[in-house]
Amino acid sequence: MVIAGPCSVENEGQILETARAVKEAGASVFRGGAFKPRTSPYSFQGMGEEGLKLLQSARETTGLPIITEVLNPRDLDLVVRYADILQVGARNIQNFSLLKEVGQTKKPVLLKRGMATTIKEFLMSAEYILSEGNNDVILCERGIRTFETATRNTLDLSCIPVIKRMSHLPILIDPSHAVGTWHYVASMARAAVAAGADGLMIEVHPNPEEALCDGGQSLKPNRFEHLLKTIAPIAAAVGKKMPQAGN
Amino acid sequence: MVIAGPCSVENEGQILETARAVKEAGASVFRGGAFKPRTSPYSFQGMGEEGLKLLQSARETTGLPIITEVLNPRDLDLVVRYADILQVGARNIQNFSLLKEVGQTKKPVLLKRGMATTIKEFLMSAEYILSEGNNDVILCERGIRTFETATRNTLDLSCIPVIKRMSHLPILIDPSHAVGTWHYVASMARAAVAAGADGLMIEVHPNPEEALCDGGQSLKPNRFEHLLKTIAPIAAAVGKKMPQAGN
Amino acid sequence: MVIAGPCSVENEGQILETARAVKEAGASVFRGGAFKPRTSPYSFQGMGEEGLKLLQSARETTGLPIITEVLNPRDLDLVVRYADILQVGARNIQNFSLLKEVGQTKKPVLLKRGMATTIKEFLMSAEYILSEGNNDVILCERGIRTFETATRNTLDLSCIPVIKRMSHLPILIDPSHAVGTWHYVASMARAAVAAGADGLMIEVHPNPEEALCDGGQSLKPNRFEHLLKTIAPIAAAVGKKMPQAGN
Amino acid sequence: MVIAGPCSVENEGQILETARAVKEAGASVFRGGAFKPRTSPYSFQGMGEEGLKLLQSARETTGLPIITEVLNPRDLDLVVRYADILQVGARNIQNFSLLKEVGQTKKPVLLKRGMATTIKEFLMSAEYILSEGNNDVILCERGIRTFETATRNTLDLSCIPVIKRMSHLPILIDPSHAVGTWHYVASMARAAVAAGADGLMIEVHPNPEEALCDGGQSLKPNRFEHLLKTIAPIAAAVGKKMPQAGN
Repeated sequence: MVIAGPCSVENEGQILETARAVKEAGASVFRGGAFKPRTSPYSFQGMGEEGLKLLQSARETTGLPIITEVLNPRDLDLVVRYADILQVGARNIQNFSLLKEVGQTKKPVLLKRGMATTIKEFLMSAEYILSEGNNDVILCERGIRTFETATRNTLDLSCIPVIKRMSHLPILIDPSHAVGTWHYVASMARAAVAAGADGLMIEVHPNPEEALCDGGQSLKPNRFEHLLKTIAPIAAAVGKKMPQAGN
Repeated sequence: MVIAGPCSVENEGQILETARAVKEAGASVFRGGAFKPRTSPYSFQGMGEEGLKLLQSARETTGLPIITEVLNPRDLDLVVRYADILQVGARNIQNFSLLKEVGQTKKPVLLKRGMATTIKEFLMSAEYILSEGNNDVILCERGIRTFETATRNTLDLSCIPVIKRMSHLPILIDPSHAVGTWHYVASMARAAVAAGADGLMIEVHPNPEEALCDGGQSLKPNRFEHLLKTIAPIAAAVGKKMPQAGN
Repeated sequence: MVIAGPCSVENEGQILETARAVKEAGASVFRGGAFKPRTSPYSFQGMGEEGLKLLQSARETTGLPIITEVLNPRDLDLVVRYADILQVGARNIQNFSLLKEVGQTKKPVLLKRGMATTIKEFLMSAEYILSEGNNDVILCERGIRTFETATRNTLDLSCIPVIKRMSHLPILIDPSHAVGTWHYVASMARAAVAAGADGLMIEVHPNPEEALCDGGQSLKPNRFEHLLKTIAPIAAAVGKKMPQAGN
Repeated sequence: MVIAGPCSVENEGQILETARAVKEAGASVFRGGAFKPRTSPYSFQGMGEEGLKLLQSARETTGLPIITEVLNPRDLDLVVRYADILQVGARNIQNFSLLKEVGQTKKPVLLKRGMATTIKEFLMSAEYILSEGNNDVILCERGIRTFETATRNTLDLSCIPVIKRMSHLPILIDPSHAVGTWHYVASMARAAVAAGADGLMIEVHPNPEEALCDGGQSLKPNRFEHLLKTIAPIAAAVGKKMPQAGN
């Protein structure tokens, strides 16, 4: 599973252009945030339902399923109407109310590990979803907080074999948020696949320098396409299949 | 401000006995959790509204104002009816939906720093509450996650002078959750006051060995009373007044 | 025990002026680095033996015993000739060769905890000194490395009660290196004493803005003097005596 | 470059058997510790010169160059006589005296990143060696200390692209020490190669359950051989050549 797309939904042109490009390059799911969890209340908070509608257009245009984040239990019904996969973000890893409520939906849930969440706690948070009857949980590592400042967070790829040994749940890697700058994304994406990850989540934006959030860590579509080509032989070497580009 | 009480509301006897004891010892606010954020969905999750009613009895019996945690925006109206101060816990430090909604109430909000929250992020989360019009925010440090395992978390007392320099908001210290064992609570409580903290939050339980959660870090009432006596001269030395015992 | 003085020995005027000032304010030991462990090989590395001679002058002038750091086993004989107390710095906490060799001297050794050293490892490093026959080991906490960036390191004051419970060795606190800026030093020094520390190590420099290293975290002598006065009642409250100023 | 061998030299049989096995499997350098930096002074400290002699036999038997750790500047001349590559361990990353002295030798130096060393500090420590005139420095990441306890340390593979961007020095990965249990070594070794590492350092022991140190993280020779086979196509995919097995 290769999930790609921008950090946030900004406008129709950006969304449709990116969706087409990542589909062309080989992505299997399209991502985009309509509700954004921002450290500051004065930062751009996302387009809300308007953004969800643009994601729907992207799905209609490309056929790619849509993943988007839900922040507030009160928005859950709304997000469920538009999303194919619900994302619970790193900041909500122990928002147990939200976990229980997404566990009561019938949508797959991608659950991101928190910045200071141990692997055991990560699996326990997944258990909050599973215990409500929703078995379709996808784990996603996106970097943990350490003393190192050369990268935004430290991507803990060793969680892959640990989780494979402790759980049956699939584990995806989001290198973009972990490293915080596009220069290091390709290297870490290849490493993730070699380590046995079940998929990737990559930020792609047609004009990173103009992105409303996280532009610096976004790949341009052509770099993303190139990245997937370099990953294919690594995936093959560890017995995984890649989605076919352009299908 | 000295907040004291058990981790969770368990039954009427426990609540009333503890409330009377901490009042007698000099506490100014009574705490107790009715909705508990637990790592595992299979752990005790709190008594819910039944617990809130017991807290109300404690207030009626002792006159102490009540602080209790709210986890879910959907429970907010309920909790507001019973609590004098709302607590937002460490796990919800970036649950921005919840922060906004408590910001729309007229109750004081005690906001606990997350285990991996920087001081800047902590103040930004407070800003989510302030920006909704609620100016009565009390910060509370309860330990950050580090590599050290001799204590449950590492109590970051240096946040006190940092916050005093960056913000006008009061800062309380919760040594109980930080150190994770009662042996170290008194030492850290005294240090917090000497460092300039505006108050303390201390776990007190009449029978720690039978507590449904966090018994190991709870002080018995007599140790709590002794602690407050040893704190008084330190508070005086740094120009703070302690609440009067038994009033 | 209150150890005070500049990060590094720079020249005779600076050393004698500071030594007199900290003596006057009530310090019981004078510190100054002649061999400096610097992250970069291109930073000032200390004055070497010339610096040791200036420390000797300071002792002759003030009567204060001298503590200074030894970095290299090959310099040990030299440092032993001048120092009353040997310091092993945080970066050498697991330099076991050096620990063994200072353990073979008859001088007291102040051992600083490393930035990522657990308390158990800290005590094991002390054991390297003790096991060579030198029982005069003084532990010193100077901050651990965490994700927080508002302070240089995070001062782990909870190590005080932990060490008091696990070991008979005295534990000092160095707030200056931990917080990294003088604004927070006094608050943390008071907290350390309240927590039960056996002493303090404080950086003092007559002209911090011109210091060759760590100026930003140094107190001016008058602030240091004021700090000790504010500490006295806290020390009294926890049953400790302060050294008498000016004796 | 694939470095393999046991944590410590234990006896002739163990050393020669392992050296032959790793040579057969495709390793290009043989490792083994004669001087061991152990947290406790009461743990096995290594065989000293006797161990160095056994490493020499291993070189004579297999033709593989030898890497071994030097702890004490006073042992440097001795170690230089036996080793082809000098190792400076994680605990000595800021033992600047030792760094300067290995910088004055003509042997290549493998420098391990400390458990709490930032990448900038890591490169600065390398600079201590380079600035003495020794340009043959090989960096090695072996895990950093974080809050996660499922692995011994957290392997920071993102240091590979960061170092590639900031420095010309080669960077090797030691997954064995980082993960702390053999189950996760192969996955992380493959990830390291995919991320662009210039080599690997892997612990191999013929009887891990009887090893005097770090047995739990050692691969048996047949697992090591299998690992190298699975790495070959990944190395090819990222444009690296593997050493030829059995040559």
